[in-house]
Amino acid sequence: MSDLIQMGKKAKEAAVVLSVLPTTKKNQALCHAAEALLAAKEDILEANAADVAAAEAAGIKGAFIDRLTLTDKRLEEMAEGLRQVASLDDPVGEVLSMKTLDNGLMIGQKRVPMGVIGIIFEARPNVTADAFGLCLKAGSAVILRGGKEAISTNKRVVEVFQRALAEEGLPEGVVQIVQDTSRETANEMMRLNGYLDVLIPRGGAGLIQSVVQNSTVPVIQTGVGNCHIFVDESADLEKALRIVLNAKTQRPGVCNACESLLVHEKLAETFLPMIGKALQEKKVEVRGDETTCQKVPGAVAATEEDWATEYADYIISTRVVKNLDEAIEHIRRYTTGHSEAIVTENYTNAQRFLNEVDAAAVYVNASTRFTDGGQFGFGAEIGISTQKLHARGPMGLKELTTTKYIIYGNGQIRE
Amino acid sequence: MSDLIQMGKKAKEAAVVLSVLPTTKKNQALCHAAEALLAAKEDILEANAADVAAAEAAGIKGAFIDRLTLTDKRLEEMAEGLRQVASLDDPVGEVLSMKTLDNGLMIGQKRVPMGVIGIIFEARPNVTADAFGLCLKAGSAVILRGGKEAISTNKRVVEVFQRALAEEGLPEGVVQIVQDTSRETANEMMRLNGYLDVLIPRGGAGLIQSVVQNSTVPVIQTGVGNCHIFVDESADLEKALRIVLNAKTQRPGVCNACESLLVHEKLAETFLPMIGKALQEKKVEVRGDETTCQKVPGAVAATEEDWATEYADYIISTRVVKNLDEAIEHIRRYTTGHSEAIVTENYTNAQRFLNEVDAAAVYVNASTRFTDGGQFGFGAEIGISTQKLHARGPMGLKELTTTKYIIYGNGQIRE
Repeated sequence: MSDLIQMGKKAKEAAVVLSVLPTTKKNQALCHAAEALLAAKEDILEANAADVAAAEAAGIKGAFIDRLTLTDKRLEEMAEGLRQVASLDDPVGEVLSMKTLDNGLMIGQKRVPMGVIGIIFEARPNVTADAFGLCLKAGSAVILRGGKEAISTNKRVVEVFQRALAEEGLPEGVVQIVQDTSRETANEMMRLNGYLDVLIPRGGAGLIQSVVQNSTVPVIQTGVGNCHIFVDESADLEKALRIVLNAKTQRPGVCNACESLLVHEKLAETFLPMIGKALQEKKVEVRGDETTCQKVPGAVAATEEDWATEYADYIISTRVVKNLDEAIEHIRRYTTGHSEAIVTENYTNAQRFLNEVDAAAVYVNASTRFTDGGQFGFGAEIGISTQKLHARGPMGLKELTTTKYIIYGNGQIRE
Repeated sequence: MSDLIQMGKKAKEAAVVLSVLPTTKKNQALCHAAEALLAAKEDILEANAADVAAAEAAGIKGAFIDRLTLTDKRLEEMAEGLRQVASLDDPVGEVLSMKTLDNGLMIGQKRVPMGVIGIIFEARPNVTADAFGLCLKAGSAVILRGGKEAISTNKRVVEVFQRALAEEGLPEGVVQIVQDTSRETANEMMRLNGYLDVLIPRGGAGLIQSVVQNSTVPVIQTGVGNCHIFVDESADLEKALRIVLNAKTQRPGVCNACESLLVHEKLAETFLPMIGKALQEKKVEVRGDETTCQKVPGAVAATEEDWATEYADYIISTRVVKNLDEAIEHIRRYTTGHSEAIVTENYTNAQRFLNEVDAAAVYVNASTRFTDGGQFGFGAEIGISTQKLHARGPMGLKELTTTKYIIYGNGQIRE
């Protein structure tokens, strides 16, 4: 039996325990895990330092190292995250509907745990704590498979959690980490049907595509965001300026940042030079169509590829469109279905944009940066789904659950 | 460009039209399609007769031919099915929630069409009409890929629908049938990401497994039901007898039929011989554990394989268990997560069974045969999901939709 199947079996057994665990017990376990994390701080930071040193020795640098590195502050945030999840409402057990049929059968739809959740992620040790906390609160066991560069850290963190769980009388199958970080085990995990109920990749486009292409376990696709803002003829230019600058520059590396700006042709003389200059002052490179290049000094010509690119950087593609129809058409062609916004004072155009643009989140007169579980009031999120099945948009605790029908009968049979 | 990609493009264009089509227009199109189906009766029956003759010439017989064959009555049922779907509530546009955040953003979650749905099915021409009707009402375009034996019939039916749609001003991309029924096109369809939003296989276990194993498009797994009934010590034996007989024999070929009977050991002398005899009188073969074989004359010994088998036939596996725990343990091991039932008069055991058995539908004192969109009051169903993602149990119109967040702002930016 492979290690992964053994982990799958353990996780399924743990899921049975979790499925009927009272909320107070789950919260207690989460708080205990948070304490244990802080108590083991030295130990975890030591393991992390070894991971970071090995990564640097392998020539890795920059943002990757930053994401890999744990500090006192980050560990405290991880612990605080677990306590926050404990404070959220338990989604399990909610009865979504209940009705009595003509034949007297009473049928209810009840929210129940998913069972076993798989998470494949990159070298960000904080995901280990986040995913564990959310899955536990949602009543599911989790099998984690993190990037190889963080393996020492992840192992240590999971050991700490397992010890805390054991002290609460809970099985270690509640949270497990895949120790062998080879590509083969990742591929095996993607085909662990019968053990995993869902697989959620968290990371860059490459990781997500690999999971989508290879997984036979149901996947929730997260993340890629080629987000547009269309500034309509009737836009309040002050609002438009503020929204575009915020969506592009407040945190350019994230999936809900704006990547592409569409401007109504009637604003080519007014708003376009103004926003171009303001973006450039914030160190944003403007890649534009012909009109943009004429109106924005320093803008460079955009290629076809630019319209489809999620830069996740200080770059924006910019195009002038004839009207709302052309804006919607452009978005339809290049959207990744994440977040799309219009800035307009025209009621009908606002409603049309909301109705006709097909994305997880569609905005009128607000920054796309709000697409986030925390901002939406979910308390926490496991990721942002850009697929249409199961969950769309920020996924909180509810999106980590499923439902079952419960039927109360009195001897009914089907005629 | 392959035929399928071309179909995908057409379907996506049609989905844009459908996404904003008023309910009355959709209903009109459905009723028009129903009329057109009846008007083309001769033509369709002729195509079907050719399909049937070819299948028979290829040596196919029995239930397969029955499912392939259209009659006046079946065509009328297909037309009536479309009219019924027209009479159902439109799921699209429902706002599931709407709230105002502290920063004044108003966030709503709205039910919207899925986009493009793929259906892979076997040689049952009635699925062509069912799937078309449900998808259209749910606002999605559909690409159908039916079994090769029904291709002439399916082509004719889809042509009839497309003509009716054209007369309503709707594009033919609303419903398309894959003309090339080779395995290669099926495989290509399973990897049509970017065009198909979801793929639903309808048919036997082999078809479903092939789609689950090969599809990179998100799949909803339907159908396989190894359904158990546990008759508890405190059961009302008259109810138990009625429920087991109904669940096993009312229609043994379907997925919600009972396949396995678990009997509390205290009932080994009373209920077990009684139900054994009653089942045998209905021509059901009893395959039992040791005790069953002792108590039910004519029962044959069950093998390990029997416990895991969906017979879809006049056969039942039967086992005596010590108590509720052993019953739940057995079910956990062999369930396909479809429908499970307990017959009991004990309150606590009833609640424990509902809580601890993990399946799409869990029953107390009723036949498993009720797991059905029609019976549950959905008006119609596209299948019964046995997976936990997106939909679980009978899937009606709502389960064929997705949601999007709509956000009304007033210039908000993220700090």
